[in-house]
Amino acid sequence: MEALTSFSDASLHEIRRDLHAHAEAGWKEFRTTALLAAELEELGYEVHLGANAVDPSERMGVPSDDEVAAARERALNEGTPAAYVERMDDITGAVAIKRFGDGPTIGVRTDIDALERQEAMDDDHRPAREGFASVHPGEMHACGHDAHATIGLGVARTFAQEGFDGTLKLFFQPAEEGGRGGKPMSESGHLDDLDHLLAVHVGLDEPIGTVVSSYDAPLANAKVDVTFSGEPAHAGGEPNAGRNALQAAAAAIGNLYGIARHGDGRTRINVGRVSADNAQNVICEEATMRVEVRGSTHDLNEYMLGRAREVIDGAATMHDVDYGTELYGKTTTFENDESVIERVEAAAEATDAVDEVIRTEFGGSEDASYLIRRVQESGGTATYLGIGASNPSGHHTAYFDIDETAIDIGVDVITEAIRRLNPSSSVD
Amino acid sequence: MEALTSFSDASLHEIRRDLHAHAEAGWKEFRTTALLAAELEELGYEVHLGANAVDPSERMGVPSDDEVAAARERALNEGTPAAYVERMDDITGAVAIKRFGDGPTIGVRTDIDALERQEAMDDDHRPAREGFASVHPGEMHACGHDAHATIGLGVARTFAQEGFDGTLKLFFQPAEEGGRGGKPMSESGHLDDLDHLLAVHVGLDEPIGTVVSSYDAPLANAKVDVTFSGEPAHAGGEPNAGRNALQAAAAAIGNLYGIARHGDGRTRINVGRVSADNAQNVICEEATMRVEVRGSTHDLNEYMLGRAREVIDGAATMHDVDYGTELYGKTTTFENDESVIERVEAAAEATDAVDEVIRTEFGGSEDASYLIRRVQESGGTATYLGIGASNPSGHHTAYFDIDETAIDIGVDVITEAIRRLNPSSSVD
Amino acid sequence: MEALTSFSDASLHEIRRDLHAHAEAGWKEFRTTALLAAELEELGYEVHLGANAVDPSERMGVPSDDEVAAARERALNEGTPAAYVERMDDITGAVAIKRFGDGPTIGVRTDIDALERQEAMDDDHRPAREGFASVHPGEMHACGHDAHATIGLGVARTFAQEGFDGTLKLFFQPAEEGGRGGKPMSESGHLDDLDHLLAVHVGLDEPIGTVVSSYDAPLANAKVDVTFSGEPAHAGGEPNAGRNALQAAAAAIGNLYGIARHGDGRTRINVGRVSADNAQNVICEEATMRVEVRGSTHDLNEYMLGRAREVIDGAATMHDVDYGTELYGKTTTFENDESVIERVEAAAEATDAVDEVIRTEFGGSEDASYLIRRVQESGGTATYLGIGASNPSGHHTAYFDIDETAIDIGVDVITEAIRRLNPSSSVD
Amino acid sequence: MEALTSFSDASLHEIRRDLHAHAEAGWKEFRTTALLAAELEELGYEVHLGANAVDPSERMGVPSDDEVAAARERALNEGTPAAYVERMDDITGAVAIKRFGDGPTIGVRTDIDALERQEAMDDDHRPAREGFASVHPGEMHACGHDAHATIGLGVARTFAQEGFDGTLKLFFQPAEEGGRGGKPMSESGHLDDLDHLLAVHVGLDEPIGTVVSSYDAPLANAKVDVTFSGEPAHAGGEPNAGRNALQAAAAAIGNLYGIARHGDGRTRINVGRVSADNAQNVICEEATMRVEVRGSTHDLNEYMLGRAREVIDGAATMHDVDYGTELYGKTTTFENDESVIERVEAAAEATDAVDEVIRTEFGGSEDASYLIRRVQESGGTATYLGIGASNPSGHHTAYFDIDETAIDIGVDVITEAIRRLNPSSSVD
Repeated sequence: MEALTSFSDASLHEIRRDLHAHAEAGWKEFRTTALLAAELEELGYEVHLGANAVDPSERMGVPSDDEVAAARERALNEGTPAAYVERMDDITGAVAIKRFGDGPTIGVRTDIDALERQEAMDDDHRPAREGFASVHPGEMHACGHDAHATIGLGVARTFAQEGFDGTLKLFFQPAEEGGRGGKPMSESGHLDDLDHLLAVHVGLDEPIGTVVSSYDAPLANAKVDVTFSGEPAHAGGEPNAGRNALQAAAAAIGNLYGIARHGDGRTRINVGRVSADNAQNVICEEATMRVEVRGSTHDLNEYMLGRAREVIDGAATMHDVDYGTELYGKTTTFENDESVIERVEAAAEATDAVDEVIRTEFGGSEDASYLIRRVQESGGTATYLGIGASNPSGHHTAYFDIDETAIDIGVDVITEAIRRLNPSSSVD
Repeated sequence: MEALTSFSDASLHEIRRDLHAHAEAGWKEFRTTALLAAELEELGYEVHLGANAVDPSERMGVPSDDEVAAARERALNEGTPAAYVERMDDITGAVAIKRFGDGPTIGVRTDIDALERQEAMDDDHRPAREGFASVHPGEMHACGHDAHATIGLGVARTFAQEGFDGTLKLFFQPAEEGGRGGKPMSESGHLDDLDHLLAVHVGLDEPIGTVVSSYDAPLANAKVDVTFSGEPAHAGGEPNAGRNALQAAAAAIGNLYGIARHGDGRTRINVGRVSADNAQNVICEEATMRVEVRGSTHDLNEYMLGRAREVIDGAATMHDVDYGTELYGKTTTFENDESVIERVEAAAEATDAVDEVIRTEFGGSEDASYLIRRVQESGGTATYLGIGASNPSGHHTAYFDIDETAIDIGVDVITEAIRRLNPSSSVD
Repeated sequence: MEALTSFSDASLHEIRRDLHAHAEAGWKEFRTTALLAAELEELGYEVHLGANAVDPSERMGVPSDDEVAAARERALNEGTPAAYVERMDDITGAVAIKRFGDGPTIGVRTDIDALERQEAMDDDHRPAREGFASVHPGEMHACGHDAHATIGLGVARTFAQEGFDGTLKLFFQPAEEGGRGGKPMSESGHLDDLDHLLAVHVGLDEPIGTVVSSYDAPLANAKVDVTFSGEPAHAGGEPNAGRNALQAAAAAIGNLYGIARHGDGRTRINVGRVSADNAQNVICEEATMRVEVRGSTHDLNEYMLGRAREVIDGAATMHDVDYGTELYGKTTTFENDESVIERVEAAAEATDAVDEVIRTEFGGSEDASYLIRRVQESGGTATYLGIGASNPSGHHTAYFDIDETAIDIGVDVITEAIRRLNPSSSVD
Repeated sequence: MEALTSFSDASLHEIRRDLHAHAEAGWKEFRTTALLAAELEELGYEVHLGANAVDPSERMGVPSDDEVAAARERALNEGTPAAYVERMDDITGAVAIKRFGDGPTIGVRTDIDALERQEAMDDDHRPAREGFASVHPGEMHACGHDAHATIGLGVARTFAQEGFDGTLKLFFQPAEEGGRGGKPMSESGHLDDLDHLLAVHVGLDEPIGTVVSSYDAPLANAKVDVTFSGEPAHAGGEPNAGRNALQAAAAAIGNLYGIARHGDGRTRINVGRVSADNAQNVICEEATMRVEVRGSTHDLNEYMLGRAREVIDGAATMHDVDYGTELYGKTTTFENDESVIERVEAAAEATDAVDEVIRTEFGGSEDASYLIRRVQESGGTATYLGIGASNPSGHHTAYFDIDETAIDIGVDVITEAIRRLNPSSSVD
């Protein structure tokens, strides 16, 4: 499908498909950010980009400079407006603000990044069949963030037209996958004066017509990249001369899974990726791995993270190798506020296309947690809500897709909830 | 450098540089085999190719069909004579035979494959500086097999011109790296009637002018590819639903290195490569590794291989995963025969360019071992000889190169040794 | 303190101290069983002993024949009535039954075994100070079962005197520690016709005056003894000749702790004891370990047990050793019945010495679970209740003791609850 | 058998049987040392005991004070002369010196300790059958040191009677098993002026009549005791609160065996003993293990020891536990001197009962290495010689015994060799 160069004349469904077709993974969302920013400014919003939208020093899991540069060039080659790319200064994500009246300041958080995975390209998959599958090999909107960004824009359009008695702040958060962008956006300063925050997710394996007014209690999560560095040696001639990074990694893996369960609640540990690559006759001088820990509370997650660091440190000592760790991403826990949940429920019940309103819990993790906590710590309230989308295949799979009606429902429920969060509202 | 399409008018030094520039890794030596075969037939040798040169059922570590096909197409695109490629039937390597007289049947074994590694491309490296570095990314003659093949051809040319009282058999062995081609060539049937065999290696960190009349006692070696196959699962939601291939691999690695040392002599174990690749939040469903064992005798190598298989089997059981193993390559041990060594020494001493003759031992492994053993088991005698080449950098490194005079010395010493192995020779 | 040879003229407090002083660990309770049986028969109860009290084929974690014989001889030497010891036929534990009227059949389960640990012998510990610390080195009533048995006898005395409209069954269960005696007693057949069952525990770190009407939701538990058997060898001369049982044990331990957490709830794994004993220069031919798994449901416990067996099997395969496993003990989960809980609460509130009635959950495991489940499966109801005893030191520690008033409260609450469980009771 | 209280009137064979019957393990040889010392002083030798015989600060693997005291009391109870025990000041071992003439100073080293193992007590074992099996449970002369000490005394008796032109020094070394006493005796100062040293071993699986003139090239060896110390915790309630010493030990064991083999020669690693002892439901707070490393050179042994320390350190870090290590024993390598070997060979050939003289190599380790090296470093020469004894069962086994003729052969060969080491000797 032909890439849009502006969203001005496009419908929300067209925009969602355009974003789907040009999926950009975390910290590579140049085109997505720029096109959203251009449209938002056109709608009258004040748009903050780059270091004005996320705190650069808090960014985690940022790809190499070369990868970021390649993503930027790709976006420009696809017709992305260069002025916006320039303003971003290689930092994706946007915050859009507009004061419509004296009432409360209300935020809407939508994430915008794609996953690093290949989309299915056969006719069983509607995006492929109808020509809007991702043209970027190895990048795919397999978690619905294309719809999220579109919903955020839909809310912007609605209020640009209708107004409301308050200030609207739209957070288009980058790099949610892996929990890399939530913390830096939460430190941007833009959250601190919010009275209320709504975050939204589509899909959740719920049917279209179902709204989740409170989707909470995720596991806190941390992801750490580890590199063990030793010395190579000929495995036949003088194996002793090596410092075996792979032995260290194997010892670490074996013992990471063995970190003691915790009496206070759920904990998790996983090593998702390991790589060491030499000929068979060379003692491995480098081994990398990607580790993830979780806990049902912040403290349990910190317990796992602390113990994991000890295991990694000990494994390196054991095999006389050096190591480095880098935090790839991190999320925390949150609980939604009853008062906001109830407004969402009222809004959902008032929406024609909604036939069921439920509350559920997260199985996984979310870095909206940092934004929600920031708002709550500053005295505001929040909920994370879900919009059923009859997704035909699970999140993160190659065949993930949504019923696009979910976008309309999302915009309607959120705009209605925002109106109802206004104390001067007559529709409580 | 422009690829030759025939070796007829080329000098040995030119041929070596042409082979160096078009390095082909194991089981991909289509161009090398074809050009050598064409020239050998032109010289009057009977050339056996494909299944007539190596026993297909004994081949180890053969790349995938796609990789082999790509190598074949590359060779054709570089102007390799198609008729020879066709005769090979996707099996590289060649045996060339010519009967010159009634005397003994004498073999010369040279290997022809390159390594899977990138060649240095800067001016510190003569092949790069003088324009004959490998044009095949990731493939490089870093072990001197380009010189070996050239020496074999040089011997063929010398006797085609001068003749001698006996039969000459030239073995251009594929896939020596990893020990994959020696066994299948040893089973070709062409070794069984040899009276004597000479195998040759250049370099060995010896200076030009030094000849090693006996280079023996290598470690026996076996390389095994292992794949553990489990089930993926979400590491946060239901880690129990996974069958963790990476945990199995880590347990295997930890315990492979712990296989008991042996009272009878040297043993070795190494895992050179491991790969498992998932997102951090997915229990690994597949992990692969490349294992190598060695022993200073065949039995010690078998002890290590047998114990390694037990460890791998147990690791899979532990973590309830399936596994498969494939023998990637294998070598055995050998000892050279004193009678042949002495003829080589006499020949070397009779060669002007030679100023020192020594005997040394292997640090590593060699699949010429299978050819040498085959000859010895059939009643013949053999030696593995070395030609110093003042190599500026170690074998298998990106800067490996040779003093090309070694090619001339190699041809001279081997042809002279062959003459002296003839009992009717007057030059003993 | 001088050992009693009959309980006839002793007060409950004297009996508790006598039992405390002659602590007998699991399956060694010869004296305890015999003295209780003699007294119960004197009170008019029909007493079942040996195979009539527990199903011998279901017994777990039974000490060796030599150890059992030594315990039997010790009991006889301490003046235990030989006739009762003979009737036991080396199987400890007793069931006492008396029909007082036509009303319901109600059971009381108390356990009678001591722990295998040394009691504190200094004056900070009242049993030592006042002369009733255990005279059996390495055996101690550190979990209050001396009080439990006494409470059971107290209930028997009360009803022998007062009667009630129903049948009373008293279960004096052996070998609760480790979860070894509950299953075999539950299979005795005596549980199947119970209308209600009350099980009791003292202490629980609650103050005297507190009664726990429902103490439930324990973790299911299984304990397994493992022996790895290999071959010894001289570690210097021919380490290869060994089959290293210790390496197998170490691999097992490392990987047991690494069994994946379960998405459905709490799981636990521990290795409490390991032993391998050779000179430093001998490859270990035998290693033993004691493993424990738990789960918050029966299925989770079975998941852990099944996975633990796979890990052990794989570890043995890895190191080419044999192994055997033996189930040392096992418990399951249970939930108390609301109707019985409420009767206990009413009874407790009616007891002067009780000032607080609460409900709590188990942190650990209990093999009363099998008796409770058996009753519930047969259509009866049950609760596991607790009697606060202001224990000065935690359960299983060397300084564990109780406020003996808890015995009186226990008898009072249980007898009152039994009366209230009688539908013809006027005190509901 | 009745214990001797003096060796004065006893034959060598009687003395050997008396020592055999009262086997004393390393650093417990109170009776052995005292009776030898008394007899040596009676023969006119100057006897050094306690800190005058071994350097106390260099002692390794010394039992606890309680164990040493118990051994001392046992010796006294067996009638050992108290004056000698007092002079020893709890340090076993003796050096006896006598100057007979102006010639060279020649040393004879014999070790005196027993093994910590139970002797066979059935009639298949001659010491049991004939009534001189060890009366000390768990201690046995299973390596022939009873014969060694006797040979040393025999040499003393011979020269006391016959004299020779030189000075004789007899080293009765304690605690050879485990390599604990050689180093401290080598630092006593008594070795430094030796011209020649003869050390002797009986058995070696050689038949009676065979003498080994040079028994050398042992593996260097180090033994280390390791204790991991963590924190206990209830494995069900709060496993996280523990610091698991057993997990640390298991990780250490797994990785100790995986220390890389060395290109320069033989290395060895073993863990002979592990102990952790808790109930199944307690996270282990303490685990101990006994580790041994070896190398065919001093440097290789140090390589193993250094790497083992890193593995242990890393294992402790991994599981957040503390640890301590203590060197239990240590030996080094040595080579015998040709000149001394030849004198021994001449002496053996001159001995009637000798029918074969050979040279062999050690499979194991010996702490005579320190004495031999000390002599060689001071300019002297040495050999370690062996006396075949037709031992019916291997060294260190419960059925080890010797043909006692070996004692006579030992005395004869050594005294004759000493005479021949005298340059003024006429019997060269």
